[in-house]
Amino acid sequence: MFSPVCERLSECENFSVNTWRTCSKSDSSGASNSGGESSKESSRSSTPVLDTDRTDRLRDKMRRRTESGDHWFSLEFFPPRTASGAVNLISRFDRMGSGGPLFIDITWHPAGDPGSDKETSSMMIASTAVNYCGLESILHLTCCNQTKEKITGYLSKAKRLGLKNIMALRGDPMGADWEEEEAGFNYATDLVKHIRCEFDDYFDICVAGYPTGHPEAESYDEDLRHLKEKVDAGADFIITQLFFRADTFLKFVRDCRAIGITCPILPGIFPIQGYQSLRQLVKLSKLEVPEEIMRVIEPIKDNDAAIRNYGIEQAVGMCRVLLESGEVPGLHFYTLNREVATMEVLRQLGLWIEDPRRTLPWAVSAHPKRKVEDVRPIFWASRPKSYIYRTQDWDDFPNGRWGNSSSPAFGELNDYYLFYLKSKSSKDALLKMWGEELTSEQSVYEVFTSYITAQPNVAGHKVMCLPWNDDPLAPETNLLKDELDKVNRRGVLTINSQPSINGKPSSDPIVGWGPPGGYVFQKAYLEFFTSSENVTALLKVLKKYEPRVNYHIVNVHGQNTTNAHDMQPNAVTWGIFPGREIVQPTVVDPVSFLYWKDEAFALWIEQWANLYEDESPSRMIIKYIHDNYFLVNLVDNDFPLDNCLWQVIDDMFELLDNPPEEQPAEQPNDEQSDKEQPGK
Amino acid sequence: MFSPVCERLSECENFSVNTWRTCSKSDSSGASNSGGESSKESSRSSTPVLDTDRTDRLRDKMRRRTESGDHWFSLEFFPPRTASGAVNLISRFDRMGSGGPLFIDITWHPAGDPGSDKETSSMMIASTAVNYCGLESILHLTCCNQTKEKITGYLSKAKRLGLKNIMALRGDPMGADWEEEEAGFNYATDLVKHIRCEFDDYFDICVAGYPTGHPEAESYDEDLRHLKEKVDAGADFIITQLFFRADTFLKFVRDCRAIGITCPILPGIFPIQGYQSLRQLVKLSKLEVPEEIMRVIEPIKDNDAAIRNYGIEQAVGMCRVLLESGEVPGLHFYTLNREVATMEVLRQLGLWIEDPRRTLPWAVSAHPKRKVEDVRPIFWASRPKSYIYRTQDWDDFPNGRWGNSSSPAFGELNDYYLFYLKSKSSKDALLKMWGEELTSEQSVYEVFTSYITAQPNVAGHKVMCLPWNDDPLAPETNLLKDELDKVNRRGVLTINSQPSINGKPSSDPIVGWGPPGGYVFQKAYLEFFTSSENVTALLKVLKKYEPRVNYHIVNVHGQNTTNAHDMQPNAVTWGIFPGREIVQPTVVDPVSFLYWKDEAFALWIEQWANLYEDESPSRMIIKYIHDNYFLVNLVDNDFPLDNCLWQVIDDMFELLDNPPEEQPAEQPNDEQSDKEQPGK
Repeated sequence: MFSPVCERLSECENFSVNTWRTCSKSDSSGASNSGGESSKESSRSSTPVLDTDRTDRLRDKMRRRTESGDHWFSLEFFPPRTASGAVNLISRFDRMGSGGPLFIDITWHPAGDPGSDKETSSMMIASTAVNYCGLESILHLTCCNQTKEKITGYLSKAKRLGLKNIMALRGDPMGADWEEEEAGFNYATDLVKHIRCEFDDYFDICVAGYPTGHPEAESYDEDLRHLKEKVDAGADFIITQLFFRADTFLKFVRDCRAIGITCPILPGIFPIQGYQSLRQLVKLSKLEVPEEIMRVIEPIKDNDAAIRNYGIEQAVGMCRVLLESGEVPGLHFYTLNREVATMEVLRQLGLWIEDPRRTLPWAVSAHPKRKVEDVRPIFWASRPKSYIYRTQDWDDFPNGRWGNSSSPAFGELNDYYLFYLKSKSSKDALLKMWGEELTSEQSVYEVFTSYITAQPNVAGHKVMCLPWNDDPLAPETNLLKDELDKVNRRGVLTINSQPSINGKPSSDPIVGWGPPGGYVFQKAYLEFFTSSENVTALLKVLKKYEPRVNYHIVNVHGQNTTNAHDMQPNAVTWGIFPGREIVQPTVVDPVSFLYWKDEAFALWIEQWANLYEDESPSRMIIKYIHDNYFLVNLVDNDFPLDNCLWQVIDDMFELLDNPPEEQPAEQPNDEQSDKEQPGK
Repeated sequence: MFSPVCERLSECENFSVNTWRTCSKSDSSGASNSGGESSKESSRSSTPVLDTDRTDRLRDKMRRRTESGDHWFSLEFFPPRTASGAVNLISRFDRMGSGGPLFIDITWHPAGDPGSDKETSSMMIASTAVNYCGLESILHLTCCNQTKEKITGYLSKAKRLGLKNIMALRGDPMGADWEEEEAGFNYATDLVKHIRCEFDDYFDICVAGYPTGHPEAESYDEDLRHLKEKVDAGADFIITQLFFRADTFLKFVRDCRAIGITCPILPGIFPIQGYQSLRQLVKLSKLEVPEEIMRVIEPIKDNDAAIRNYGIEQAVGMCRVLLESGEVPGLHFYTLNREVATMEVLRQLGLWIEDPRRTLPWAVSAHPKRKVEDVRPIFWASRPKSYIYRTQDWDDFPNGRWGNSSSPAFGELNDYYLFYLKSKSSKDALLKMWGEELTSEQSVYEVFTSYITAQPNVAGHKVMCLPWNDDPLAPETNLLKDELDKVNRRGVLTINSQPSINGKPSSDPIVGWGPPGGYVFQKAYLEFFTSSENVTALLKVLKKYEPRVNYHIVNVHGQNTTNAHDMQPNAVTWGIFPGREIVQPTVVDPVSFLYWKDEAFALWIEQWANLYEDESPSRMIIKYIHDNYFLVNLVDNDFPLDNCLWQVIDDMFELLDNPPEEQPAEQPNDEQSDKEQPGK
């Protein structure tokens, strides 16, 4: 929520209309610009090279959604005050992101060191939303009392971090004796111009609109003229201050159109969530709450639930009027960093996407550099933020195929403390789930089994996560629950798996992804830690499954055994869609596996062993597993047949239970050993 | 077959052992080199980047085949004397190439302007074999009486054309008064050294061995020492002069090994094909035919068939002894540009591959630049040589996916006269097939129908080819024969089609391709010319098939109608293989289609209309079709279901037969029209 701001036109010294106008901006203003855009559009179907940069922009997404008559919503958040608040907010992003907002925006808190690298800064929260949660995001930026150098620094940093959209605000003057500065930023218009001066057409720019006029403006009409100036200076769309009556907004839109503002105007919706927060807000924003609302609220002011329910009802009613007016393409929600009320309003409006269509089977980062990325190794399936972190310095991302040589070095992951990588659970909660005291390897097996079955462990606690999986079992993995349960009990400690799929519709609620009308496929995959005794038996068994099953087996020291031909990647998930090339979003890549193994083994220590005292038996047990177990992955290449990987494991147990006589045991690393470890 | 040559060691002025030895040559000589190679081999499985250049070399292929104990064969041809001889030889390459030779070699005819651009030159024939027939090829080169500049020029040209292997020979001295030249090439060894000097390790080099000693050599031992010098100078393997007894060769190999020649030695096999050719050969090569052979041949010398049968029997017997000796990894055949005898010998030996496994569904070019190429537009499926020609100047070839931007300009195809693009049929034969006199569009339809059904046309001639298809219907297309017959009769003039395939084994004899253990898939495809009346009805019908069917419809003027989203390519053939990424070798690419349409329409005129007199009715009919028909392609995206494209055509005919009343006819180009034509 932006603070009340008064704008006035002021010239930016380097400003040149042509500099950014020629970049064919779309929705901001003049007819000449729209004309430029539409001719670009119509030529697209006949030119070989698609300008994907442009189709990917927020303003273009907004335009396409608007043109299709499809209503959408967006969500505003403010940066948290504490580190644990940041961890919670990021998982809220993941949850609320799944409902399908067109974008989110993060407010700028000048008092909170907003441009810093602190985990609670506006800049870092917005960057995490874009890069790690894959959310199209707008970063607010206020210019009041800031030097141009400082602002340019913030913008450069935002660009470097992959942010593409700025909400340009004046911000509250510091202190009462504020006066206009000659060379500085006095109004949001100055900031809009500065952004266009310094960054050309790179950013999509949003500005604030005041349906009842800015409290500091001389008049409503004067304020509208300032808004027109902001738009003319290069803003792409407008988000309004909150309001309590649909009519207020609809009149405002009519007035904007009347003076030639043609860009999208998004209503800011504030579901009333409590009496105190409403009072506070009204005071800050100098808004008046209409009598008909106060009449309802006053009598129930001590009943939080009743007020929230009223707030939901009131917001839903108002939103319905707005959407039915035909003037409102999308709704912008002031969430106050809370989920329930906003989600309920969106559900009642039918805008919340219960079963979001996944573009790819993994969450796509919204960083522009990663736009083309459509292949990833399967290993990080449950740790996508870690994968994004470890590949953040790549210049190019695999597109179409992984390739043998398209696998540049992965960054080291020693920074388990990074807030977007941290477990949502406290040390206490982890100890309850993973055992206050481990007595044997078997007690570790039981933790895995509890996680798989979602049954309480011996101490009566549900195991909601494991070091390799921060969330409960995915619905897809749940399909394999019985088999996973069975093998984990015997020390095949599974950390990643997928069933085989032979052409299910892309709309399938559990395994579907990608555009409608397609078919998705998978090869069965199983990844687990297991003892070297098991691996010795497994390797014998696997000979019977050549070439159907591909395997990679590695221990923490890098002893590596594989039957992968020429170390080529193996595509294990792919989709066939109407009018498209094949998409193969996940591969088992032998090279990346050696980087992943470092991380997978380290998690035993970082996340689990470190919970216990030095030299404690619990710690020693985890340490023993870390030092002696192997990490194994298996792919069943014959996807049209029944998954044979369970049979492979059964055969291994059978061999262990009934060992043939006379044959000397083989070492697991007999067959093919890699001396070089790309992961090191 | 190489001419008798006498070699002697001679120093090459720029020669440096290190220059090329460090390139880790494999089979040529010293232990240090082999060591270098094998360490490279063993590290391959643990390094991310595969040195594909090296695994793709002839000497490496030879080594791998030899190590696997797999016998192979190769074929020698000489350049033709006439242009029509060149056309015939190229189609012989295609036929004999399908039997799976490891390589072919083309002799160097110093008298025939061998390095020129003439269609009959050694250089051009070898280049065509590599580029257009996809055959690993060795170009012979003789150095006698040649300047270094001339030789370097030939080698540079060969490299530029994509040739990678040279057979280094001395050649016959011109005239009897030949004397060694101080600065020139006097022996094959000089040439080998020169190649290594000037081209480092780029070429694989083959040299000639003489099992009975070179006729001009002082002695058998002296000749062996010369051979050792050639190998030491950098030759990778040896092909021997022909011989008549297995023992001759086996003794020769033993003698070579005894003096330290370790590289592969391939026996030159000459199946006796006739009395006269044998006499001629013996005279030229100064070989003696053993008495036991002469005893059989003399009595039947006027019976060609009997001699050939004997020749086959004799060659098979000798080859069996050679292969069973364990000394012979592969057999090299002197074909004399004939097919029957060599193919029969190979069949009896079980070396001829009756049903060659296709790496990809189209013939891969052997040019090193195209090594990674694995995606092509489907349009040139029946004209692969034209596709290769039109893309010969590309720097990169699509790999993995076609992509929107990976489609650089196609070269113009005005050179229909190029010998590798020419029809194998004479003008006379074409007139018989396609009609001496056309009376209507209907008579054109009948030509198409005759081609599809392989039934004689009204004049009693089988139609073996069409301008767009130089060969009879492919076995895969034959699966669609009945439907194709039906629609061609009514003027849906099909030029390309494939059935849908939902996961057939990659070993399937008709539709399979790629490595074993995989599955291949296809979307149904149909491409045809048809009248604008038909297209008008078709476009109405296609509305019912959205988004299942993608279409592109274009006329010669570039009026283009499509429902392809964002002009993206549509993958219509793909394969899933054990331990591999997805391969999608054919796409329907909207951009390339506009290049193809120029070629497809031009073929009406170039190949068909031009058969007739100016202004003749026949010519005018073809011209009318060229000017007024549309080229249509249809893809059924729903590959797991029954192909709906026949239903689409049926619906079109139904609509034409029973037009609904009142509705005005639409123009085919109403929906989306491209003003810009990338093809122009």
